[in-house]
Amino acid sequence: MWQIVEDDLESIAIGAGILGTGGGGNPYIGQLRAREAIRKHGPVDVLSPDELDEDSLVICVGGIGAPTVGIEKIRGLQSYEAFRAIERYTGKKATALISNEIGGSNSLEPLIPAAFADLPVVDADGMGRAFPEFQMKTFFVYGVPCTPMAVCDERGNTAIIPEAASPKWVERMARAVTIQMGCVACYAVAPMTAKQVQTTAVLHSLSLAKSLGEAVRASRKQNSDCIAAILDTCPGRVLFSGKIVELERQTTSGFARGRVVIEGAGDQSSSRMEIEFQNENLVARLGGETVCMVPDLICIVDSDKGEPITTELLRYGFRVTVLAFPAPTLWTTPEGLQVVGPRAFGYDLDYVPLEL
Amino acid sequence: MWQIVEDDLESIAIGAGILGTGGGGNPYIGQLRAREAIRKHGPVDVLSPDELDEDSLVICVGGIGAPTVGIEKIRGLQSYEAFRAIERYTGKKATALISNEIGGSNSLEPLIPAAFADLPVVDADGMGRAFPEFQMKTFFVYGVPCTPMAVCDERGNTAIIPEAASPKWVERMARAVTIQMGCVACYAVAPMTAKQVQTTAVLHSLSLAKSLGEAVRASRKQNSDCIAAILDTCPGRVLFSGKIVELERQTTSGFARGRVVIEGAGDQSSSRMEIEFQNENLVARLGGETVCMVPDLICIVDSDKGEPITTELLRYGFRVTVLAFPAPTLWTTPEGLQVVGPRAFGYDLDYVPLEL
Repeated sequence: MWQIVEDDLESIAIGAGILGTGGGGNPYIGQLRAREAIRKHGPVDVLSPDELDEDSLVICVGGIGAPTVGIEKIRGLQSYEAFRAIERYTGKKATALISNEIGGSNSLEPLIPAAFADLPVVDADGMGRAFPEFQMKTFFVYGVPCTPMAVCDERGNTAIIPEAASPKWVERMARAVTIQMGCVACYAVAPMTAKQVQTTAVLHSLSLAKSLGEAVRASRKQNSDCIAAILDTCPGRVLFSGKIVELERQTTSGFARGRVVIEGAGDQSSSRMEIEFQNENLVARLGGETVCMVPDLICIVDSDKGEPITTELLRYGFRVTVLAFPAPTLWTTPEGLQVVGPRAFGYDLDYVPLEL
Repeated sequence: MWQIVEDDLESIAIGAGILGTGGGGNPYIGQLRAREAIRKHGPVDVLSPDELDEDSLVICVGGIGAPTVGIEKIRGLQSYEAFRAIERYTGKKATALISNEIGGSNSLEPLIPAAFADLPVVDADGMGRAFPEFQMKTFFVYGVPCTPMAVCDERGNTAIIPEAASPKWVERMARAVTIQMGCVACYAVAPMTAKQVQTTAVLHSLSLAKSLGEAVRASRKQNSDCIAAILDTCPGRVLFSGKIVELERQTTSGFARGRVVIEGAGDQSSSRMEIEFQNENLVARLGGETVCMVPDLICIVDSDKGEPITTELLRYGFRVTVLAFPAPTLWTTPEGLQVVGPRAFGYDLDYVPLEL
């Protein structure tokens, strides 16, 4: 067990911003919200998945919506309301909370209800990165029920989905409700057992986010290479480096969708990398050729400071480095690829794993 | 108490088609579905509101969606699933069911779960006509809670709304889910007490629908004037008579919206009546002047047979008579008009009651 204190939040936000592949919600806003909760209620305990008691009940919480809206319409205690709604519906009390996705502000989202309810969080999540849709969780791919699920907004509106034909149908219904709620809401899902967490979650991802952020912060202090510090902490590689010269982004059907084009720096000035996103970066092409694709991680960071640049913050002229990391192995099985492989996002591509 | 037997269904369908002011779902399809249920499980008991035991629990059920879709995507047992979902959620068993609206197929919708669950229905409803939106029920205007509410589709998808900022917010969330479900679904709402039904429902509306239909059927048999038979049974008046010469209709945001223009017959051939609808007929204008408006009832019937013509069945060339009936008095109070008066539908009009 370890504890998350106020100073850890900046590290987790940086690391989760990188792992978020552009999405998961703005990490800075997540950090401010988690800071307020921890200042008020004290540090939050983090349990390693193997420290969970056999009779644990772990509720997964997260934000849902478009990150472009999430930086304007700030969430409050909706994830607290959502996990309480699941507790009331199931008649079971949670013993711990877990993040739906380690990416972006969703890495920090469980800390807020955890601080308020004096519960620990688990060092694991349901994606090992961020993905745009509800059904895209390792939990559900490996047999954990995705209902009941509750969505809450800031007005006191709640919708519970007690039964659904598939996890994708939960996504459809919850997304439609979220759009009505103003395109940003929070949700919680039926409690999981310790064994379910241990066998279906991406493990130790909160520690990884923290380590990544600590490495970036240390290298900033030492004025050393932030990109190298990131790659030393989490094995991956640089895909490309340059300047954002084109950006298309729209908020549609409850998502931020678009593409960004980066023009190479130095001797790469004649090359261009194009990245398409749906909240998260999905596919990276260099000179028209696909060089990285979901579920592998495509992360855009500021070339100088290593600061992750999420979808909603992309701007013309930013000097950026595109990093790639291999997907968690739970995603690269046939079952995993069916849910988050390139075809799940409408690309007529077979998954080719990133070469390191 | 009386019973609904198979032969009554045609009468109720005709009467409810008239009272439905164009909406409430196709009455013929509702009739076929109710017939199947009654053939299988026997007649359904109908309780007068004053026959309800003090400890009654009355669940309101209905269809939700666009009538243009409802004639293509036929409902099954979804209202049964929805009322069972409410029973499970509240932990209370219904003792009777009630129609959300007496208009169209929604007049017959409760008969299906009632037949399957061997429960009586109440001779009353929440509108005394049909209206397009969930919050437009006398129940909620006069203080009955509108949550929990459950929506079910034919795939096994269910959404429950346990809490909402207002009845209008239930409509927004439920409509969004319904659109995802394919624009047609069924719903049920929290049980009401006997006293709540007696004081907030439009009473004896199922009897009225049946009487209207019986009058039309009798006059068809006798080759007498069907229009006169309708007006003898339910006080109202003829607004206009003629041929449909223009029709605009689209299915949008979960509703059938549009307008129909009727050219006068005989000495009225230079006049035109225009009627705008959102599932139901909202406003009728004669030569540009508003002559009837919500919540008063505007009903289009076949001039010859008195057959009600619902929104989705309007066709160029039909010879029709436009009838108008005064709204139930529960709707003409300031509280009622706030929810279903012309301004609730975006018209810059003060309600002027129909003159008989």
